[in-house]
Amino acid sequence: MGRWQPGARGRLGQAAMELYVERGYDQTTVAEIAQRAGLTSRTFFRHFADKREVLFAGTDAVQDRLVTALDAVPADTAPLGVVRAALVAVAEAVGDDHDHSRRRQQVISTNAELRERELVKLAAWSRALADGLRRRGADEHAASIAAEVGVAVFRVAFERWATGPGDRHLTDVVRDSFEQLPTA
Amino acid sequence: MGRWQPGARGRLGQAAMELYVERGYDQTTVAEIAQRAGLTSRTFFRHFADKREVLFAGTDAVQDRLVTALDAVPADTAPLGVVRAALVAVAEAVGDDHDHSRRRQQVISTNAELRERELVKLAAWSRALADGLRRRGADEHAASIAAEVGVAVFRVAFERWATGPGDRHLTDVVRDSFEQLPTA
Repeated sequence: MGRWQPGARGRLGQAAMELYVERGYDQTTVAEIAQRAGLTSRTFFRHFADKREVLFAGTDAVQDRLVTALDAVPADTAPLGVVRAALVAVAEAVGDDHDHSRRRQQVISTNAELRERELVKLAAWSRALADGLRRRGADEHAASIAAEVGVAVFRVAFERWATGPGDRHLTDVVRDSFEQLPTA
Repeated sequence: MGRWQPGARGRLGQAAMELYVERGYDQTTVAEIAQRAGLTSRTFFRHFADKREVLFAGTDAVQDRLVTALDAVPADTAPLGVVRAALVAVAEAVGDDHDHSRRRQQVISTNAELRERELVKLAAWSRALADGLRRRGADEHAASIAAEVGVAVFRVAFERWATGPGDRHLTDVVRDSFEQLPTA
């Protein structure tokens, strides 16, 4: 989800990710994250609700970007084309730091609660996309299918990219993955 | 997920669903479910780990059916066609009791924890489908995409069917929904 910003929030995010990878997510406490960042737990809680939310910082901003991109797609585009364009725009935004994404994916994959939280995030994207398609006049059912299918493709592409060597940009992997859709 | 079986397990399932709809899931206790079924809490816990798992009884059996159906699809079928056939087979198995599915969907939609559990169930289906496709020799990436996309389509179809009037069989709604896939 992009490089950590400078300042307390960024230092906490960086420290948390280091500790999650070094010790494991379950074994890391907020106090340890704060200490590694040279800050207090109180400062941590000013920026994040809990240690889980460090990994989901920026989720709302990404969803906003998804909706903005969707609204900018030309009106005569088919639902799945609209969804693809919006998700490629998100890929542009979140695909500039492969190392961060690789480590984040690694941490999430080891913990059931984090995997669930990630699914919930993606379900929210899907709802936002379907709502956007309906605003554009798409049929209710077609909107839901395009949104769910698009997010499914993005998810596979993102995981492939994040767990791979990072020699390509995420946008290319997302585009290629959409190409894999039928002809069933 | 099909009609409740007779016997203690079935009575507990029936009682739980009634109470979840009447009072709300959060407001219902295991003691109340057992009482409504004319049984003890101890008997409840012999059949279900907790009140959540009543709504996910039969999940493993459905996943087994998914894999069995997948393995039975002719070898020259494209990945998404294999996934569609397996999910239509599941629709046959779970689509015979619209009223049960409607109430279950209603309960799940009102509770974040249950929605998450449902997402986790579907993610497990997707993994099982992707594994099955790879066993059949499908490319790793193509297998993941077909599995995720297929489950996404099924999910939208199931929700549409469960929240609708139930005048069609789930298998028809699932087939129609796969027809909605591109031409993007």
